[in-house]
Amino acid sequence: MNFNEEYEKRLTEIESILTRYLPEKEGYQKIIMEAMEYSLMAGGKRLRPMLMLESFRLFGGRTACIEPFMAALEMIHTYSLVHDDLPAMDNDDYRRGRKTTHVVYGEDMGILAGDALLNYAFETACKAFDLEPENSLRIGRALKILAEKAGIYGMIGGQVVDVRESGHRISGDLLEFIYRLKTSALIESAVMTGAVLAGAADEEIRRMEEIAGKIGLAFQIQDDILDVTGTEELLGKPVHSDEKNEKTTYVSWKGLEGSRREAARLTDEAIADLRALGRDSAYLEALFRWLVYRDK
Amino acid sequence: MNFNEEYEKRLTEIESILTRYLPEKEGYQKIIMEAMEYSLMAGGKRLRPMLMLESFRLFGGRTACIEPFMAALEMIHTYSLVHDDLPAMDNDDYRRGRKTTHVVYGEDMGILAGDALLNYAFETACKAFDLEPENSLRIGRALKILAEKAGIYGMIGGQVVDVRESGHRISGDLLEFIYRLKTSALIESAVMTGAVLAGAADEEIRRMEEIAGKIGLAFQIQDDILDVTGTEELLGKPVHSDEKNEKTTYVSWKGLEGSRREAARLTDEAIADLRALGRDSAYLEALFRWLVYRDK
Repeated sequence: MNFNEEYEKRLTEIESILTRYLPEKEGYQKIIMEAMEYSLMAGGKRLRPMLMLESFRLFGGRTACIEPFMAALEMIHTYSLVHDDLPAMDNDDYRRGRKTTHVVYGEDMGILAGDALLNYAFETACKAFDLEPENSLRIGRALKILAEKAGIYGMIGGQVVDVRESGHRISGDLLEFIYRLKTSALIESAVMTGAVLAGAADEEIRRMEEIAGKIGLAFQIQDDILDVTGTEELLGKPVHSDEKNEKTTYVSWKGLEGSRREAARLTDEAIADLRALGRDSAYLEALFRWLVYRDK
Repeated sequence: MNFNEEYEKRLTEIESILTRYLPEKEGYQKIIMEAMEYSLMAGGKRLRPMLMLESFRLFGGRTACIEPFMAALEMIHTYSLVHDDLPAMDNDDYRRGRKTTHVVYGEDMGILAGDALLNYAFETACKAFDLEPENSLRIGRALKILAEKAGIYGMIGGQVVDVRESGHRISGDLLEFIYRLKTSALIESAVMTGAVLAGAADEEIRRMEEIAGKIGLAFQIQDDILDVTGTEELLGKPVHSDEKNEKTTYVSWKGLEGSRREAARLTDEAIADLRALGRDSAYLEALFRWLVYRDK
């Protein structure tokens, strides 16, 4: 398998799905649709919808009802970045080499664009009920996971602790708590909703959640490593920001080599767990490896 | 019927439902649960969940699956107030006589508490799937309305235009567009989700939407009137704020008497439409009248 080729193929498919599920830019409130598109279509790895689609296919899913969920999850991820960049939060002017949403549209529209993306994520996911009314029970279950993993017991919960502890040195335990909620929760959401919508068994969904938990943590560790070893050019954002902000990271906690070992160990475990499911997971395995050996 | 007595009875019931659906205050992220409770339990008329419950009962609904939706809608209404009060938006320090959420918890937590309430609204509504899995199709339909009416074609859309036009004189048409989205959309959401969950027919749901559109507009006109004629003590917020901010309102557009006539006309029409449904709507009618003759 040529990973890059396979990855690009999926990326193109995902960009086209995102474009199709964006709202038309029309009406007196047109500016908000523009701000939503600006932030959603800013590029990125599209990791979450990609993992969702792979998990869906892994368990035999073949229909289009996965697509609104893929778009919804990327909208949730994007809104969290838009709000995270606000002056009262991280106060970032650039992301992925472009001006952040509030810099282009103003702070009030930055707040509203984030709200709009979060709300539209649920509007979008609800379109699955129209596509497959006969699977309403399954869609309802996926929707519940989507909401829970994004909320106070998931992503927002991690964000809250991260914001409150910023500028303090924190324990390794608390750091792992933050990463598990802030980063892993949406990765777990991706593979779980994919599995649920494909009709996977409860035990399979539970195992996918565990695998995603490991991959999410490995992914975040690699982010910490790249903040030290990466270049601004490749990453499209300032490096050494953690050190500047005196943030506790995996690297400040376990050192560069210790962090690399931990990320590799988690990835190996996740791949072994994935293989144990006995399904055709060649691309997912390659994707997991790429995530931890990426340079951007 | 003693309206005040009936109203208080329902209010007590709703406060108890809201309390039950709030998250436990626990974990490292406890502060966000506290901020959510602070903003949600600040009092208020609880108009939206009340209308939802009445609409549900009007069409014969009797089960508990309405409760998570009632809590969800009030969470959506509350998050919109929390974000609306932020420094980059209306920059209000007081609401309902208490300090606003960002004043108490900081601007970053104000943003996150709003996000958390919006997200938790959908988590909460999804609990209906567990209560009545056999009604998943109906619950999915109600969820879709809940999401749409809160989003860019509903409340957020109105908010966007309102924010963008603040400080300008605007046309009556645009003013009505803003009110229809910013205020009426959630009132429509209330009666429509109530009707859907009770199993009302499509035509009945459409008629309830129309009735709610009229009541929402009358309600907003009365708000404009009270900003001119009310007292800070009764309203728990500053009066004459519209004049100070040079806002176009119904009163600046049609005068005090013209606005009163329009609010009364809309309410009379809504009540006639409601009676035409041929159901027991005595309390709803009284509630409609109270909304337009209230002094706070």
